[in-house]
Amino acid sequence: MGNESTANDTAGGTRGGPYDRGAVRALIDRLTAEGRTVLTAPEGKVVADAYGIPTPGEALATGPDEAVAAATAMGLPVVLKIVSPQIPHKTDAGGVLVGLGTADAVREGYATIVANARAYDPSATIVGVQVQQLVPPGQEVIVGAVTDPTFGKVVAFGLGGVLVEVIKDVTFRLAPATPDDARSMLDSIAAAGVLTGTRGAEPVDRDALAEVIVRLSDLVTDFPEIAEADLNPVVALPRSAGSPGAIAADVRIILDPDPAPPRPTFAREDILAAMERLMKPRSVAVIGASAEAGKIGNSVMRNLVGGGFAGEIHPINPKADEILGLPARASVLDVPGPVDVAVFAIPAAFVPGALEEAGRKGVAAAVLIPSGFAETGDQELQDKVVAIARKYGVRLLGPNIYGYYYTPSDLSATFCTPYDVKGGVALSSQSGGIGMAILGFSRTTRTGVSAIVGLGNKADLDEDDLLTFFADDPHTTAIAMHLEDLKDGRAFVEAARRTVPRKPVVVLKAGRTALGARAAGSHTGALAGDDRVYDDILRQAGVIRAPGLNEMLEYARALPVLPTPSGENVVIITGAGGSGVLLSDACVEAGLTLMDIPPDLDEAFRRFIPPFGAAGNPIDITGGEPPSTYEATIRLGLSDPRIHALILGYWHTIVTPPMVFAELTARVVAEFRARGVDKPVVASLAGDTEVEEASAHLFERGIVAYPYTTEKPVAALGAKYRWARAAGLLPRSSP
Amino acid sequence: MGNESTANDTAGGTRGGPYDRGAVRALIDRLTAEGRTVLTAPEGKVVADAYGIPTPGEALATGPDEAVAAATAMGLPVVLKIVSPQIPHKTDAGGVLVGLGTADAVREGYATIVANARAYDPSATIVGVQVQQLVPPGQEVIVGAVTDPTFGKVVAFGLGGVLVEVIKDVTFRLAPATPDDARSMLDSIAAAGVLTGTRGAEPVDRDALAEVIVRLSDLVTDFPEIAEADLNPVVALPRSAGSPGAIAADVRIILDPDPAPPRPTFAREDILAAMERLMKPRSVAVIGASAEAGKIGNSVMRNLVGGGFAGEIHPINPKADEILGLPARASVLDVPGPVDVAVFAIPAAFVPGALEEAGRKGVAAAVLIPSGFAETGDQELQDKVVAIARKYGVRLLGPNIYGYYYTPSDLSATFCTPYDVKGGVALSSQSGGIGMAILGFSRTTRTGVSAIVGLGNKADLDEDDLLTFFADDPHTTAIAMHLEDLKDGRAFVEAARRTVPRKPVVVLKAGRTALGARAAGSHTGALAGDDRVYDDILRQAGVIRAPGLNEMLEYARALPVLPTPSGENVVIITGAGGSGVLLSDACVEAGLTLMDIPPDLDEAFRRFIPPFGAAGNPIDITGGEPPSTYEATIRLGLSDPRIHALILGYWHTIVTPPMVFAELTARVVAEFRARGVDKPVVASLAGDTEVEEASAHLFERGIVAYPYTTEKPVAALGAKYRWARAAGLLPRSSP
Repeated sequence: MGNESTANDTAGGTRGGPYDRGAVRALIDRLTAEGRTVLTAPEGKVVADAYGIPTPGEALATGPDEAVAAATAMGLPVVLKIVSPQIPHKTDAGGVLVGLGTADAVREGYATIVANARAYDPSATIVGVQVQQLVPPGQEVIVGAVTDPTFGKVVAFGLGGVLVEVIKDVTFRLAPATPDDARSMLDSIAAAGVLTGTRGAEPVDRDALAEVIVRLSDLVTDFPEIAEADLNPVVALPRSAGSPGAIAADVRIILDPDPAPPRPTFAREDILAAMERLMKPRSVAVIGASAEAGKIGNSVMRNLVGGGFAGEIHPINPKADEILGLPARASVLDVPGPVDVAVFAIPAAFVPGALEEAGRKGVAAAVLIPSGFAETGDQELQDKVVAIARKYGVRLLGPNIYGYYYTPSDLSATFCTPYDVKGGVALSSQSGGIGMAILGFSRTTRTGVSAIVGLGNKADLDEDDLLTFFADDPHTTAIAMHLEDLKDGRAFVEAARRTVPRKPVVVLKAGRTALGARAAGSHTGALAGDDRVYDDILRQAGVIRAPGLNEMLEYARALPVLPTPSGENVVIITGAGGSGVLLSDACVEAGLTLMDIPPDLDEAFRRFIPPFGAAGNPIDITGGEPPSTYEATIRLGLSDPRIHALILGYWHTIVTPPMVFAELTARVVAEFRARGVDKPVVASLAGDTEVEEASAHLFERGIVAYPYTTEKPVAALGAKYRWARAAGLLPRSSP
Repeated sequence: MGNESTANDTAGGTRGGPYDRGAVRALIDRLTAEGRTVLTAPEGKVVADAYGIPTPGEALATGPDEAVAAATAMGLPVVLKIVSPQIPHKTDAGGVLVGLGTADAVREGYATIVANARAYDPSATIVGVQVQQLVPPGQEVIVGAVTDPTFGKVVAFGLGGVLVEVIKDVTFRLAPATPDDARSMLDSIAAAGVLTGTRGAEPVDRDALAEVIVRLSDLVTDFPEIAEADLNPVVALPRSAGSPGAIAADVRIILDPDPAPPRPTFAREDILAAMERLMKPRSVAVIGASAEAGKIGNSVMRNLVGGGFAGEIHPINPKADEILGLPARASVLDVPGPVDVAVFAIPAAFVPGALEEAGRKGVAAAVLIPSGFAETGDQELQDKVVAIARKYGVRLLGPNIYGYYYTPSDLSATFCTPYDVKGGVALSSQSGGIGMAILGFSRTTRTGVSAIVGLGNKADLDEDDLLTFFADDPHTTAIAMHLEDLKDGRAFVEAARRTVPRKPVVVLKAGRTALGARAAGSHTGALAGDDRVYDDILRQAGVIRAPGLNEMLEYARALPVLPTPSGENVVIITGAGGSGVLLSDACVEAGLTLMDIPPDLDEAFRRFIPPFGAAGNPIDITGGEPPSTYEATIRLGLSDPRIHALILGYWHTIVTPPMVFAELTARVVAEFRARGVDKPVVASLAGDTEVEEASAHLFERGIVAYPYTTEKPVAALGAKYRWARAAGLLPRSSP
């Protein structure tokens, strides 16, 4: 024991370290053999030492010189405690001295407490004196690690006391955490200012604190048996020579001898191969195809045919000769040539038999529309179906879904209605109802869509498979997903991390409140983890989280339309001062930076606006201005390279009617885009009902515009910025 | 000095007290005479004593018996300090003893430090020994009072340290605060749990803490010269016999010798009389009326005539004989008979002259459309106009506005277009642009409106005048106001408090962020107070604050439509489980309570839904159910008196198409309303574009319904609940 233990890296550290993994393995094996799950404090210290997590120094001295040497090595002041098996109550025996600050005091102290102990019990065996470092006063924080049901090992950080226990000011990251992850945690808590010395105190040693986080996260990654680890408190100290910077004053570790096994995963190339055939099939079979209107098997057929799918369509129905003019077969096995996708429109009970046939036929994917599986309590039937699919290497979409759309293939494999506005966003929903809302919203707003996919029970294919495909799909420029749970949070994060550098990923995570999670529980049977974990880890993966359904839909509509900004300088140009104020508020909410306009640019803007207008930012061109004022200021905003994005506030007047504003703005933006200047421009239109047509006109031309709201256009721009930052496309802003 | 001072209430306390106002008056007068603004600690203690705010006990003892008596009276332990003009450095002289916990220790201690002092300086005069109470350890909090530019004296409360300084976890109330106000402050901070003993500690004496807040708020109310008062820390202690419960360990008071004078106010009956004539005029003159299309004076005339105003309309234009078939006069003085309202459609420079004439004519109100006053920097012209108005007792609307609408009078006194969908909501906007957005939104959603009023520069009439009228107006059932500042926050709060018990008041306060406030500053020249003060005080007044423009508009549309709930039990009935989860999340966001369904009711619902549906709450009737399932469950929800509000989640299917759902829901709700069962019902419709028509059908029939969003219907219901609670219409829910 003691911090003199040598750090032998027996396992070859790839992250932090070197670590003495052998010491921890031996300890855990011993505890497991003993059937114990809770480590004692000394055992905790062994683990901390092995992973280089500083704890208060501790040593046994058998003479005054040894005590002085130990105390000097670990750092003064120290506590001395008599060590004698016959003296359990050390204080009563005068066997404890606290706060000895000099070598002389330690030397004298040693003599004193040994003398006291002898006097107290002359027959006692004096083993020696325990020398313990007194932790210097500093900012107390908590570093912990827990096992999340969705994400597995996660590391947590927060300030101690009220802030964690009452305010819940804690932040989480996936373990293992990189040093960057760890440093970002220090900035992610509401009380972050405490660590940087906001209150006049010295700033703490951030690197040392981050190092403790990294090391603890490595520990729980290396040893899945560690269910929980709590360093509480860690005393964070100012940076100074010779100081450890952070000391874990208490180490608590709890084991789970039976950790959950990792979920089986598919290889990336296998996922892509199956998804390719699912999304771009040459041949689709509809199992349960029907000629009878109102039947699901009829709707699916009509949507495939009516949607314009150019590949083969094979209705499968033993009782029909032809359906919609296509020859019907009794079994998918009767189809001549290969079949890529089999869409199932038959009752749940018949799925296993038909899936066997589809498997033998070699289909890549089975789209299971029917309900009646896990969601109605029949987990057994669902497991059976999954087993059949695994046997034949068939991937499953669903069950319990509306089907899916992939517009580049003109594919509407669904019982809803075809969708034909091609465009960049791929959407998915776990719930059918939300899928319907996606369809209706997209249709009414003419949102350009590459795919809409129902995931339902997610018995097999899930969000990370879709991400893997959409990341590479040239037709998809943004992805938006509604989900209630993640079957494998780590696989999702991995897929998201690969996707985000290329295209934005928006997630609407339902069940984010305790009540919502309870509803999700009753709905899907999924165990919902703490939403703060979801929130932090999705952000860590660069995912844009939509606060609600409407926001997810609006982001899905706007993100593919908006070009990517090249910097943080946002400028508001507004005809209505009142809108300018609300747009400024919205910028703060959306995490946007209103550019500090330099004097020359300010002067340039002032040339176009009335003397009583306000330059600065917002630039208030004032109401009642003619189209030329809007045009001149928008041109200036687009042409000055220091400005990276524009927010326009339009005010309906007789002098500049809505469509005049819309047309001039669209024209000027198009002109600049033709010249290669492609900045994001969003607009809020305040006015009578003509602003609706004007907003639609602008949106169709790549200017994200909304009537009667100052919040939505700014929120959409904010979402684009959040993605651009996560994708590393913007110069790092200061924290 | 000392806490033995007698509390003589020299001024007759109407709130807390009794207070020794005379002592504070004398002290402040002396300080003012001396030209001092910062009180010393002993002076602060005098003030605290006068207002019964407990501070650590303090007394001068001239002998050991006196010291013991004082220490026992104030409570042990105590500190003893030598008092001698010749011994400034008491500690060096052995003249300080800390933490004496018994009478004997005090007696001995007295002797010891006197002996020490004598030994230190035999020639020193020993005046005696200062006995000071040691404040027992407890939860440190801050109680403060500041002078807000909008609301005047406000009292603040928060926990000390990081929570106030870094997390900004502080709450504000108007001073004077009632005991209820003060207790609500203890619950309003994020760290409220600390005070109720969340962390295993004993709960603090809430009454004692509330009493300190009340007393400090009374102090600053009684003495406007007190600009700031800070009790920091106040040590909050557990309730126990003989304990003061809370002790202000430090009292800091700063004076402002020249406090702002109160703003002149109008008597309520005078406001009502003028507003009556403004809103229900028998005769309106249009100064600057014009026959020329495109001129403001022409638009106003056409809107008055075309809007159907049944009273007299008098065009005033010296160069015309008639306008729109009505005889024109050279001056308002030429109009035969009285004129209630003069609408000004002339350039700013001509306003003073014409206003003189209007004043001589005895108009009640002048509606000043023109801009060119304070908003363009000409404060002088605006002041001149206000002075003329005051001279004649004319009230001013504007200047710099679009005008106003009052639909019960068919009055469209504006240069925009007439509005004729009569209904319950009165709207106002400080900004013209936002006014246009109100008009367009209302028109496209067919929102029933009683009034739309532009306030512009608010040189005279402002939000509290409007509230005073709308509170009594039988045509108005809800009020929604956009504002950037309040000229007189207290008058607004007073008017809001009178209004809220009768009808909801929604406020969109622009400039709620620092950037927004800066924009508001450049826009209106108003000094924006801290937004947290606005937030807390508007809530204290029972106002529903809308987070953005779109929310304000949606609340304005929904609140008059929704009946008032009679209790907190909200039930979600949904066809889409996925919507149920999102609706549950939205309920938490909106502060709604999902009813805990009792077993008999659960069983009753289960009778209607498939066995794999989920009862509980949300009640998931599952997709694919026929209209009869929606109808049966909605009927049950309306008929069971334990349920107070319904949230419906509709999922578009072939079995129950959108309009079928809409018609059955409207029919059932109407049937129950006819029987006197009038519960709020809101709906979220997920589906293809037909859900838009279905939502409109429902909204027109008193069911607040939206397509493609789970958040909006729940937010509207939440706003209704916030109002119902503020109006005291719901049984108090536990905090």
